[in-house]
Amino acid sequence: MNMSAVRGVPGTRERLVVIGGDAAGMSAASQARRLKSAEELEIVAFERGHFTSFSACGIPYWVGGDVDDRDRLIARTAEEHRARDIDLRMRTEVVEIDVAGGRVRARDVESGDEYWTSYDKLVIATGARPIRPDMPGADAPGVHGVQTLDDGQALIDTLTRTRGRRAVVVGAGYIGVEMAEALINRGYEVTVVNRGSEPMSTLDPDMGRLVHEAMEGLGITMVNDTEVTKVLTGENGRVRAVATQDAEYPADVVVLGIGVRPETSLARAAGLPLGDHGGLLTDLAMRVRGRENIWAGGDCVEVLDLVSGRERHIALGTHANKHGQVIGTNAAGGYATFPGVVGTAVSKVCDLEIARTGLREKDARRAGLQYVTATIESTSRAGYYPNSSPMTVKMLAERRTGRLLGVQIVGREGAGKRVDIAAVALTAGMTVEQMTSLDLGYAPPFSPVWDPVLVAARRAAKAVNTGTS
Amino acid sequence: MNMSAVRGVPGTRERLVVIGGDAAGMSAASQARRLKSAEELEIVAFERGHFTSFSACGIPYWVGGDVDDRDRLIARTAEEHRARDIDLRMRTEVVEIDVAGGRVRARDVESGDEYWTSYDKLVIATGARPIRPDMPGADAPGVHGVQTLDDGQALIDTLTRTRGRRAVVVGAGYIGVEMAEALINRGYEVTVVNRGSEPMSTLDPDMGRLVHEAMEGLGITMVNDTEVTKVLTGENGRVRAVATQDAEYPADVVVLGIGVRPETSLARAAGLPLGDHGGLLTDLAMRVRGRENIWAGGDCVEVLDLVSGRERHIALGTHANKHGQVIGTNAAGGYATFPGVVGTAVSKVCDLEIARTGLREKDARRAGLQYVTATIESTSRAGYYPNSSPMTVKMLAERRTGRLLGVQIVGREGAGKRVDIAAVALTAGMTVEQMTSLDLGYAPPFSPVWDPVLVAARRAAKAVNTGTS
Repeated sequence: MNMSAVRGVPGTRERLVVIGGDAAGMSAASQARRLKSAEELEIVAFERGHFTSFSACGIPYWVGGDVDDRDRLIARTAEEHRARDIDLRMRTEVVEIDVAGGRVRARDVESGDEYWTSYDKLVIATGARPIRPDMPGADAPGVHGVQTLDDGQALIDTLTRTRGRRAVVVGAGYIGVEMAEALINRGYEVTVVNRGSEPMSTLDPDMGRLVHEAMEGLGITMVNDTEVTKVLTGENGRVRAVATQDAEYPADVVVLGIGVRPETSLARAAGLPLGDHGGLLTDLAMRVRGRENIWAGGDCVEVLDLVSGRERHIALGTHANKHGQVIGTNAAGGYATFPGVVGTAVSKVCDLEIARTGLREKDARRAGLQYVTATIESTSRAGYYPNSSPMTVKMLAERRTGRLLGVQIVGREGAGKRVDIAAVALTAGMTVEQMTSLDLGYAPPFSPVWDPVLVAARRAAKAVNTGTS
Repeated sequence: MNMSAVRGVPGTRERLVVIGGDAAGMSAASQARRLKSAEELEIVAFERGHFTSFSACGIPYWVGGDVDDRDRLIARTAEEHRARDIDLRMRTEVVEIDVAGGRVRARDVESGDEYWTSYDKLVIATGARPIRPDMPGADAPGVHGVQTLDDGQALIDTLTRTRGRRAVVVGAGYIGVEMAEALINRGYEVTVVNRGSEPMSTLDPDMGRLVHEAMEGLGITMVNDTEVTKVLTGENGRVRAVATQDAEYPADVVVLGIGVRPETSLARAAGLPLGDHGGLLTDLAMRVRGRENIWAGGDCVEVLDLVSGRERHIALGTHANKHGQVIGTNAAGGYATFPGVVGTAVSKVCDLEIARTGLREKDARRAGLQYVTATIESTSRAGYYPNSSPMTVKMLAERRTGRLLGVQIVGREGAGKRVDIAAVALTAGMTVEQMTSLDLGYAPPFSPVWDPVLVAARRAAKAVNTGTS
């Protein structure tokens, strides 16, 4: 195809190429299709895996048995996308982006055949890759990641075939604690080996400590401040234990939940701008910086943290979907922006709910902010109402200005989603003093007369006023 | 006492008099005491009833059996207040405020004895009185209000003694629907007679319709567009039915849940400023307008609605507590304000959750605002996650500016407290377009990848942009 003939010539159909068929890529494709007909815009999407538009966040619940069918995690199948005039090419990997030439080189994963496809507009949604520890035995049978549906199926197959009941989870972030729950639900004895001093390093250690205690209360063995150095295998070559510097932990199955890094090798090779965390850098319209006709979104980009003013890497489906929406709108000639994040996350392990938004103490220090903290205990409902459960709320506010900087919540039912109150307040730049007057929903089955977030705001406002921390 | 001797003379202890010993009054007294010792400030509080600081909002759950002990509804007893050097005089009614003289006349309810007490600073927290329909039989045995603990006890006594199992609730606002739940929980056949076209007139009728259907699904008989004209009694003088213009509804017990009006007869007689709804008017520091040393808060005041810019009357414990906090701070020489409300309320009837904040359609019209609406269906959790339950979210946004005006939510578990997201966004003056980017907590057990509130915001933003409603 003569590219000069298709690029921007009036009356000629443009071609949008999407690299990556998951949340960000296919949201972008779908939104562009909503705004432009197939006569106006051709959309070609490449996906190297077997599935599109699946919920990676749902994998722990599928493994744990809460979701019985893999297909329920697929929001939209390849066929459904194709029915909407999206030329989705599965099992096809893009191996090169030729920015100067306005084209991508794709390879059929099965046949190895390669071909070039030109684009007028390009969307990079290559996602993230799990961090795989570089240690002996990490690839042994019985050692599993949980990033793709294929990963999940392989783990379920292992769990089904394995007679032993000892599981080791490496890593105690969101994936780690959710996989600990999944394995508990399947009847395993679970040990979590964690490099940090407490689980959930996205919380301050004092709040992580509460998660630690609660996980032990659930029968999970927590090993903190410890790095796995080796996976030990038995005579059959399968995993039999993980080793740390000091000890061995017997394991019939090992789950790696160490986190992910942006998958940007293609973008790097193409000379596109990457940030400190290895993610693509975009403007507020999700356009790759300095490139008029290339957008990027989802787990392969860095996002602006509205509280610290810095870029961060956050792999989370809800952001990927928003990015896709913004990109699809812009790629179709509309206008939309993604202003940034405040860093909200919520998770659970059995009945323990864990949530955070904004900055931890160390984030605030890194951003040059001085702050006060307030930590309070309250309950999810009026104290006298049945099933009222305790929760701990920690709040950070900037010294002098009193601006809200962050909130962390650990509790039971009703704790996690309360973080949304703080997420909106952070976005609005509210002070903790302003928050004390928030008109939040109150009735005994829903909240004490002072919502726990308000109790924390009062305490934090007092700390701001007295200058104490 | 020579008042000129105690009023504002340096070195002399001031006296703070509080009229009303419930949420607002006793919060004010407690906060003032926290800030000023008994040597600096004398605090005298008058309460005409038998209890202080009780949760009126908890009464339906006590009647329904969720709360087994009346005393659990009492946040702080008279003895506890007295132990903190608050001179709390129970069963003592203030019958006159002499503003010019700086004194109040109190009457011992038991003995009838009256006496004057001077004040340097006065707090009016006289609460609200239930609207009692002016109709024959309204005072018959078996007809109950549910505003005070005494009311609640009387109703429980009736329920315990009554063999019949038919209950009629008059009114279908918060109190009405909560009492319907309480009576269902006690095994009654419940009929709710409602003057409005749908239950929950604090919602738009289209959302009230969902409540109507859900209540019927719970086995509650809803009679709308109907006014009770008479309570019919049997030979023993007890209630036997309620009559409307068209029909009779047999009743072994009748609960009046019609709502409340500010109790401001004392304030009116004293010439203090009242608003259109009969509540006291204050400034932002909760000072009665034009009166330097008189504050008022709780159910007897009108509050500024931040969305419409008008005064409203809202009887709600959470506001009363905030008012008390502000008043106590100011009365003790500190500084605090109550900026106003956005009109958030949440309630439930069995497993149905009902929430609202901001303006209904008719409120927006009354305020001179043009608006678009968006109503969406979504779920409380990811669709594939167990116990994901449906909810309907209605959103109003101002035409042209896109400013959020209001949100109404009807759903099951997880629906109600989502209204807090909108409450904070309203307080911050966000547009629905801004809301589409909110970084809300996402994980499959907590939310779909697009939170229902975000789905509504997207739809509303689209309506703003296209100018459709």
